[in-house]
Amino acid sequence: MPSYSIGVDLGGTNLRIAAVDQQGKLLEKIVLDTKVTLGRDHVVNDMCAAIQGLSAKIRGAGLLLGIGIGVPGIIDMETGMVRESPNLPDWADYPARPEIEKRLGARVILENDANAAALGEKWLGAAREFDDMGMLTLGTGVGGGLVLGGRIWRGMNGMANEFGHITVEPAGARCGCGNRGCLEAYASATAVVRMAHEAIAGGNAPGLARAAEKNGDFSAKVIHNLATQGDEQAKRIFQTVGKMLGIALSDLVNALNLPIYVVGGGVSGAWEVFSPYIFEELHQRSMVYAATAPDSSNGNREGASANVRPGGSSKTIITRASLGSDAGLYGAARLPMVVET
Amino acid sequence: MPSYSIGVDLGGTNLRIAAVDQQGKLLEKIVLDTKVTLGRDHVVNDMCAAIQGLSAKIRGAGLLLGIGIGVPGIIDMETGMVRESPNLPDWADYPARPEIEKRLGARVILENDANAAALGEKWLGAAREFDDMGMLTLGTGVGGGLVLGGRIWRGMNGMANEFGHITVEPAGARCGCGNRGCLEAYASATAVVRMAHEAIAGGNAPGLARAAEKNGDFSAKVIHNLATQGDEQAKRIFQTVGKMLGIALSDLVNALNLPIYVVGGGVSGAWEVFSPYIFEELHQRSMVYAATAPDSSNGNREGASANVRPGGSSKTIITRASLGSDAGLYGAARLPMVVET
Repeated sequence: MPSYSIGVDLGGTNLRIAAVDQQGKLLEKIVLDTKVTLGRDHVVNDMCAAIQGLSAKIRGAGLLLGIGIGVPGIIDMETGMVRESPNLPDWADYPARPEIEKRLGARVILENDANAAALGEKWLGAAREFDDMGMLTLGTGVGGGLVLGGRIWRGMNGMANEFGHITVEPAGARCGCGNRGCLEAYASATAVVRMAHEAIAGGNAPGLARAAEKNGDFSAKVIHNLATQGDEQAKRIFQTVGKMLGIALSDLVNALNLPIYVVGGGVSGAWEVFSPYIFEELHQRSMVYAATAPDSSNGNREGASANVRPGGSSKTIITRASLGSDAGLYGAARLPMVVET
Repeated sequence: MPSYSIGVDLGGTNLRIAAVDQQGKLLEKIVLDTKVTLGRDHVVNDMCAAIQGLSAKIRGAGLLLGIGIGVPGIIDMETGMVRESPNLPDWADYPARPEIEKRLGARVILENDANAAALGEKWLGAAREFDDMGMLTLGTGVGGGLVLGGRIWRGMNGMANEFGHITVEPAGARCGCGNRGCLEAYASATAVVRMAHEAIAGGNAPGLARAAEKNGDFSAKVIHNLATQGDEQAKRIFQTVGKMLGIALSDLVNALNLPIYVVGGGVSGAWEVFSPYIFEELHQRSMVYAATAPDSSNGNREGASANVRPGGSSKTIITRASLGSDAGLYGAARLPMVVET
């Protein structure tokens, strides 16, 4: 009998739900608004109703293996509690797994959303040929995920993979975590906008200033567009994004020597603009990278989407995510297929 | 029948050899000079003769499980070749494992020396209650080791755990690797001496200047002694050592969320002087550490030698190595007991 599972990507803005079969084929997908302001119970009601509706729609598709939910926060895997979630504050200390299992009568697995995204890219995306991989998700913040030996690495109590809080500039910009100079303070969408406002305040960024005035929504995407059109100050911001990502990735390459690191999330849309600076730092800061960099002469271009392990030898691939914003959704759907309970 | 193995710590200065039983009991130990200048074959001859002598001496101690050798360099685990060794240059591309196996008629396992030290501390030292641990060895350079799930983590091609080349100050001091601001440029014995010479050149370090003039061997140990005696400039150097270690450890804690990180090697003798600055940085730079720091009120003092997992909850322990300079030797002896071939 064929089987499938349901993945949920519970974001602060969107609630995305998909049924996916064991081959990774999308059977059905729904996107709702996450009505965070109406409170947790409202969100859980919406989610459960949508899952039930979706299940009814694909009745006959096979055996439901379970429901995987990617949550932006720290999960206690043993109890299925959300321990902390900055974007969903009333989910803290909520026994989400038992509650939702009771409501749906099905097995539920919670996972940190950045870990779920890493698992998605490992299953069906840029890292699908690899058992070991790291992922950086550049969104409102910077999330991290690590898959070692085919399994999500969670650390001692689910707090691992905070790659966004690697220090890249010890006396640098303030981060939301209280520290100075975290990667997140330079490579998140929030940081891109902050750096643009700093450039405008500096008085020498007319293009950015005009765009900020015109756009009610002065976003990282708008700044990326300006950079693509050649605006020097916008380009300089993405140079900083790339440089700081390069420092953090050098640290990860030096420490872990994984075959592949994937960069995803909204800001990774600007990959063509910032990635050259990643590779510049990597060559300078990591002997490990220098010794294992793909050789451009044989077609394994640095940063090119490289799904196949370069012939024979061990290369370090740094590439953008290939599932886009669906990485976390597919990863969540993968959870019931791989996690033992 | 009882069994034992032989560990070899092949350093640039000393060649240390020990027979150790499966309970970790030292049966016999020899320390020789490593006559690097006489060439590789001379060193191999000395090593093999010493191993044979030692084996003869403990005949009757049981079954020899094999010989583990910690080498300061990158090892190709598949072929048993030394790929690169800065301190033993003529060992590069030398098929050490098959050659020594042939000579001794026994199973030989090569391992990077910092990995061996980590395994030693995990087996018999500060991390002996833990399946996951990280280690920093502060010697001439700064080495790293990682044990995950009870096994040495080597990465894709044996180049993992280069914690000494984590960037802690992007535009900082030059490192031997060609990068700027690596941990090794601030926390190795070499770096301690360099920083002392810089302070002397600055003209405001009379105590260090006197010591440098007096001592033919103006070493990290001499500078540590000055710091212990209250010399302000010497203390400031170890403040830098601690601060930079704190930045690198924050990165590791944030990325991996391991239960314990052990700091060993010669410079760790100055633990009491530099460790307060490690904890200062950790509290500032790692939310993960702040959430899991041992609570001084219940006796799990930060930095205290803590061999037992603090009761019940998950704590992050940062502590000095407990096997001293024998960590690598015991770890090498452990290799034949745990590595499958």
